[in-house]
Amino acid sequence: MPQMLPEYMGYDRTIAVFSPDGRLFQVEYAKEAVKKGTTSIGFVFADGVILATVRQTMKLVVPETIEKLFKIDEHIGAVSSGLLADARILADQLRVKAQINRITYEEAMDVWSLAKVLGDRMQFSTVYAGLRPFGVAFLVGGVDSTGAHVIEADPSGTLYEWKAYAIGRGSTVANKIFRDKYKDDMDEKSALKLVIDVIKKVEKTDNLSRALEIAIIRKKDKKLKLLTDEAIRKLL
Amino acid sequence: MPQMLPEYMGYDRTIAVFSPDGRLFQVEYAKEAVKKGTTSIGFVFADGVILATVRQTMKLVVPETIEKLFKIDEHIGAVSSGLLADARILADQLRVKAQINRITYEEAMDVWSLAKVLGDRMQFSTVYAGLRPFGVAFLVGGVDSTGAHVIEADPSGTLYEWKAYAIGRGSTVANKIFRDKYKDDMDEKSALKLVIDVIKKVEKTDNLSRALEIAIIRKKDKKLKLLTDEAIRKLL
Amino acid sequence: MPQMLPEYMGYDRTIAVFSPDGRLFQVEYAKEAVKKGTTSIGFVFADGVILATVRQTMKLVVPETIEKLFKIDEHIGAVSSGLLADARILADQLRVKAQINRITYEEAMDVWSLAKVLGDRMQFSTVYAGLRPFGVAFLVGGVDSTGAHVIEADPSGTLYEWKAYAIGRGSTVANKIFRDKYKDDMDEKSALKLVIDVIKKVEKTDNLSRALEIAIIRKKDKKLKLLTDEAIRKLL
Amino acid sequence: MPQMLPEYMGYDRTIAVFSPDGRLFQVEYAKEAVKKGTTSIGFVFADGVILATVRQTMKLVVPETIEKLFKIDEHIGAVSSGLLADARILADQLRVKAQINRITYEEAMDVWSLAKVLGDRMQFSTVYAGLRPFGVAFLVGGVDSTGAHVIEADPSGTLYEWKAYAIGRGSTVANKIFRDKYKDDMDEKSALKLVIDVIKKVEKTDNLSRALEIAIIRKKDKKLKLLTDEAIRKLL
Amino acid sequence: MPQMLPEYMGYDRTIAVFSPDGRLFQVEYAKEAVKKGTTSIGFVFADGVILATVRQTMKLVVPETIEKLFKIDEHIGAVSSGLLADARILADQLRVKAQINRITYEEAMDVWSLAKVLGDRMQFSTVYAGLRPFGVAFLVGGVDSTGAHVIEADPSGTLYEWKAYAIGRGSTVANKIFRDKYKDDMDEKSALKLVIDVIKKVEKTDNLSRALEIAIIRKKDKKLKLLTDEAIRKLL
Amino acid sequence: MPQMLPEYMGYDRTIAVFSPDGRLFQVEYAKEAVKKGTTSIGFVFADGVILATVRQTMKLVVPETIEKLFKIDEHIGAVSSGLLADARILADQLRVKAQINRITYEEAMDVWSLAKVLGDRMQFSTVYAGLRPFGVAFLVGGVDSTGAHVIEADPSGTLYEWKAYAIGRGSTVANKIFRDKYKDDMDEKSALKLVIDVIKKVEKTDNLSRALEIAIIRKKDKKLKLLTDEAIRKLL
Amino acid sequence: MPQMLPEYMGYDRTIAVFSPDGRLFQVEYAKEAVKKGTTSIGFVFADGVILATVRQTMKLVVPETIEKLFKIDEHIGAVSSGLLADARILADQLRVKAQINRITYEEAMDVWSLAKVLGDRMQFSTVYAGLRPFGVAFLVGGVDSTGAHVIEADPSGTLYEWKAYAIGRGSTVANKIFRDKYKDDMDEKSALKLVIDVIKKVEKTDNLSRALEIAIIRKKDKKLKLLTDEAIRKLL
Repeated sequence: MPQMLPEYMGYDRTIAVFSPDGRLFQVEYAKEAVKKGTTSIGFVFADGVILATVRQTMKLVVPETIEKLFKIDEHIGAVSSGLLADARILADQLRVKAQINRITYEEAMDVWSLAKVLGDRMQFSTVYAGLRPFGVAFLVGGVDSTGAHVIEADPSGTLYEWKAYAIGRGSTVANKIFRDKYKDDMDEKSALKLVIDVIKKVEKTDNLSRALEIAIIRKKDKKLKLLTDEAIRKLL
Repeated sequence: MPQMLPEYMGYDRTIAVFSPDGRLFQVEYAKEAVKKGTTSIGFVFADGVILATVRQTMKLVVPETIEKLFKIDEHIGAVSSGLLADARILADQLRVKAQINRITYEEAMDVWSLAKVLGDRMQFSTVYAGLRPFGVAFLVGGVDSTGAHVIEADPSGTLYEWKAYAIGRGSTVANKIFRDKYKDDMDEKSALKLVIDVIKKVEKTDNLSRALEIAIIRKKDKKLKLLTDEAIRKLL
Repeated sequence: MPQMLPEYMGYDRTIAVFSPDGRLFQVEYAKEAVKKGTTSIGFVFADGVILATVRQTMKLVVPETIEKLFKIDEHIGAVSSGLLADARILADQLRVKAQINRITYEEAMDVWSLAKVLGDRMQFSTVYAGLRPFGVAFLVGGVDSTGAHVIEADPSGTLYEWKAYAIGRGSTVANKIFRDKYKDDMDEKSALKLVIDVIKKVEKTDNLSRALEIAIIRKKDKKLKLLTDEAIRKLL
Repeated sequence: MPQMLPEYMGYDRTIAVFSPDGRLFQVEYAKEAVKKGTTSIGFVFADGVILATVRQTMKLVVPETIEKLFKIDEHIGAVSSGLLADARILADQLRVKAQINRITYEEAMDVWSLAKVLGDRMQFSTVYAGLRPFGVAFLVGGVDSTGAHVIEADPSGTLYEWKAYAIGRGSTVANKIFRDKYKDDMDEKSALKLVIDVIKKVEKTDNLSRALEIAIIRKKDKKLKLLTDEAIRKLL
Repeated sequence: MPQMLPEYMGYDRTIAVFSPDGRLFQVEYAKEAVKKGTTSIGFVFADGVILATVRQTMKLVVPETIEKLFKIDEHIGAVSSGLLADARILADQLRVKAQINRITYEEAMDVWSLAKVLGDRMQFSTVYAGLRPFGVAFLVGGVDSTGAHVIEADPSGTLYEWKAYAIGRGSTVANKIFRDKYKDDMDEKSALKLVIDVIKKVEKTDNLSRALEIAIIRKKDKKLKLLTDEAIRKLL
Repeated sequence: MPQMLPEYMGYDRTIAVFSPDGRLFQVEYAKEAVKKGTTSIGFVFADGVILATVRQTMKLVVPETIEKLFKIDEHIGAVSSGLLADARILADQLRVKAQINRITYEEAMDVWSLAKVLGDRMQFSTVYAGLRPFGVAFLVGGVDSTGAHVIEADPSGTLYEWKAYAIGRGSTVANKIFRDKYKDDMDEKSALKLVIDVIKKVEKTDNLSRALEIAIIRKKDKKLKLLTDEAIRKLL
Repeated sequence: MPQMLPEYMGYDRTIAVFSPDGRLFQVEYAKEAVKKGTTSIGFVFADGVILATVRQTMKLVVPETIEKLFKIDEHIGAVSSGLLADARILADQLRVKAQINRITYEEAMDVWSLAKVLGDRMQFSTVYAGLRPFGVAFLVGGVDSTGAHVIEADPSGTLYEWKAYAIGRGSTVANKIFRDKYKDDMDEKSALKLVIDVIKKVEKTDNLSRALEIAIIRKKDKKLKLLTDEAIRKLL
């Protein structure tokens, strides 16, 4: 929870209002919703992008149906942390946008264009008094003619491109590890190993093989592929 | 009731606003309305889906007319807990949507598509300052070409698919039993027995045979069938 | 008046907002307006439906013009308790709806369809921040091809079908008597006697013959008939 | 002023909101504006309707121009108590409505239809959060094919038909006298005498002959006639 | 300033809301703005109407350009007290309305019709929550086929016709004198003398001949004529 | 800062609301923004109009680009004090209006017509609850067929025509000097000298020749001419 | 943080409202967001314009993708400090505007016209109650037929043209140095040296060569050129 001095009390009740030191509290509170979500990771390796996320495992739930990893287009995916319903709404809008782009221009959207659509939609919700910010962050990952990209979009609509980045409840620890261990041009195997090691450290569920979801988009075919449960089990 | 520290007082008065720790209070309060409703259950067995709900029994009321179990389409039903009027409004919108889909695409909607319509409508009400969230949750159950599904939609618009799940005032006890006793691929008879046992435990009304409503959608014909009063009496 | 703990103070000032325990206070307050209104009764007997209501008797007022019993269509009526102006507005909307249905589909609306129009309109007013709920409840009574029905619509928009039910200031006592004395398939005479006995008990006005208004819709002709003053006097 | 317990403080600041005991305070406050206005009277006698009102007499004002008695149509008038500007606006809307009815249906509106137009407009202002109620009440009086009618419309939009009724600052005393002295089928002379006696009692202005305005609509010709100043002077 | 008891604190902050005793505070506060303006007078004499107003005299200001006396049409003028900008806006709307009337009906508007346009516009601003009342009052004066008229329009939109009336900071004293001294059918000379005497008493500026503005509309030609500075100087 | 008694606290938080003594606080606070701006002067002399203003001098700023003196049309200019961005927006609207007038009527707008456009726009912002008043005042100066004019428009939208007037932080002192020293029909040289003397007194910047901007519109050609830096330096 | 006396508490919670001393707090708080951003610099030298900015360096982020330096058109760029998402939204609007201008008028926009589009958009957000101000400032730099320009646009929408100016967290120190060291008509080399010296002083990051981004627009070709990483490294 962001530090809150008594004299700030009250600044956070109306939407889209600055506090005296230039902060948008509603946006910061929305980021708290992100920090409570399970961890998601985006990772650029030599030959593509890895997207990984952990689903809340609950007995009797069908984990495959908890959407935290979204296929947006053939060559672009996204992982989210935060409010599941907000994530679903935004991902659906991105899918529609990507399809419209294919139909209108007869070519696929590049990763940054798609991330901007997402960031603009999220920023919009921080400006108008009648709306709340989205309580979710995304890591958009994909491969286009300019290479492999992982782009973070947070509730303020800010976009950062990362080589390796984690969002959600394990992000502090995960990003510390990435800063220590990440190397440029890692091969897929060591990249996957590092991602798995990080997740094991920050998400200590009994049944990680069921909770974990991983997608790889390789430069050679620019197609998002989901790892099978078996493939994931082997990696653990 | 969600725990409420004094310093949070006031965050819950305006709609669609985050609290400092990233919660949407109005949505959580709407969930309290769900917890006060009578219990509803969705259950996947080997050959289909069981939906069960308990109607508030009051002397002289015509129990059949208390809508807690809704037939949405031939192959999809829904049970609800929470505000009855909110449930009716949403169920009517789903029925219309399912019919439009049949007319437009000349095929029936699959269960997840319909659940998303419901979840999107509910999420929408958590975003705009001039609306309150819906005070109701649903378990949408049905059979389509991908199999049998039970999907929960709560006031935040979040969707979870469950093998067996209960909502409403008996949900805590009911879900504990399901976690202990549920087995994959139970036959219809043992599935019904388990559902009935759970309901007997959590809804101790004198006249359960009148209060209870059960629908089965079997994979073989994909048609929602309501159990007759007699059939229910035999099960009890 | 609903019980109100100090910590809830304030939740009731803005419209369409949930309290921490999942209640819609504005709707509950609107129900208090209903409880202050004079008593109205709906009653199903073997051969039809009785609707009865008591008008506030004031000297020099023309009691026939106090609209608490509304003829909605040939075969459907409604009695109300609560704010008279709200009742008039809603009844007029129902009459228009019933006529439109006759013109569009060339057949009369059934009782439940009409009650849903009423419930949906009332629920709508509980959702939007710029509107107050309606401060009135109705008992819609009528006979259609499915039989005789009495359906209650309260300020939340919830609908219950009853065999016998009372709303308004005498409802607690009246409904207790109905629970004790109501029998299925009573004949018209004993039904009227029970209704009259109940009203005498809960509305002790000097001039009950003027205040009382009774309509009967019999299955045989499906036509709402108002009892004449003389007929009512004989019953008292 | 309506009784106001401390715990109710605050319920009255936003418009169109119920208090915990089901009252619409803004509407009750608007009724206080009515009680401050000078007295107006509507009275049904054997052969028609008398409308009487007292204008605030101030030296140098042209009393004829203070509109408290409005001719709405040939056969319908109205007297008001409360905010003069609100009364003028509503009366103008009624006149337009009456003319439109004549043009559209080629017949005059009956008294109750016109009163409902008025009541509906007033009720509307009690429902929406962005409007205040009207601070005025009316007694609509007229003669149509169903006889002579006096209908009260108060700020809530409630309509009551009276044989004799007074609104405004003298209403409590005036209505008490009417309840004692009113007889059905009084002739015009005794009716006028009773109205004048009442007004003399409740409005003790020096110059009552100037302040008083009286209109009679007789059944025989269904035309609103204003009494001349001389006629009024003779009555006093 | 209107008397204000502590328990009323708070009723005056939102617009278009009644206080418990039926007052519209925002309208009363707007009237305070009127009472702060310099005095304006309307006066009916045997052969027409006098409109007089005093402009705030400030050294170096061009007094002719301070619009407190407005020519609305050939035969109608208006003087105002209160906020100058509000007065200008309303007077411009009246001029347009008067011209449209001439074009549409090929005849000039009568004085009362024009005053009603003004009053309706002002009342409108007291009803909607998003608007403030106008902080200005007018005396509309003119001659039409029904004679000479002076009509007051205050911030509530109420209209009173006066034989002689003053608004603004000198109104209390001025109206007291008018009540003592006014006689029907005064000739122009004595009427002007009385108006001037009153103004001298209530507006003690050094340079009254520059501050004072007087218009006369005579019955014989129905044309608004402004007195020249010289004519005014002679009168003083 | 306007004097503010404790009991007024609260009246100034919502826009477009009167205080109990008839003041529009938001407008008065906007005038405080004007008083903080650098001084601007409008001055009528025998043969035309002088507009002068002082720009905030800051090292490295390009002073010519600080718009406080606006050419609105060939024959009309304006100087402003207060918020620079508000001044720019309004001046742009005036320029567009002046051009539209030229195109529509094939003649130039006169000075008062243009000032009214400005005043009306500013008044509008004081009426609606969703807008703040403009934090700027203008002196519109120009020459038309009726002569030379300087018209002040303040945040309330009030318009005053002055022979010589100053707005902004030096206005109190400047206007005192003008009241002492201004003479009608001064020639251009003495007029310029007086304006310069006043500015020197109220704006003690080191680099006045750079900060000062002066325009003259002479009656003989009705064209706004800016003094060159050299011309200004000679005058100092 | 702007100084804040207790009596001002409360003025800052609603948007677009003046404080008693004429300040727009929400705008000042938005400026605090600017002061927290990394430093950006605009600098006019003899032969063109330098735009420099520092990107927040974080390990694993792809610094090139942090947009603080925007190419708006061939000949115009902009650097920003403050909220990144707000900067992106505004820069995209400027690019679209510049393209529309090229298409509509078949010529490039000049620098001031473009800056006004930006300032107007920012001012707009300070006026309406439903919007927050933008939490970002820009230095728009470019070369057009009138020469080289650097124009600051802050959250109020105010525009200043500077010879050399810095915004963001290092602005106080940077601008002090510029005031001491800036000379007119510096050549490109010394200009770049001064800009680099300033940045080194105010942004003490380890990895300045990666964080720093510099663009030059030279008068001779009017084309924005980004310095390569290598070129920047040599300058450091």
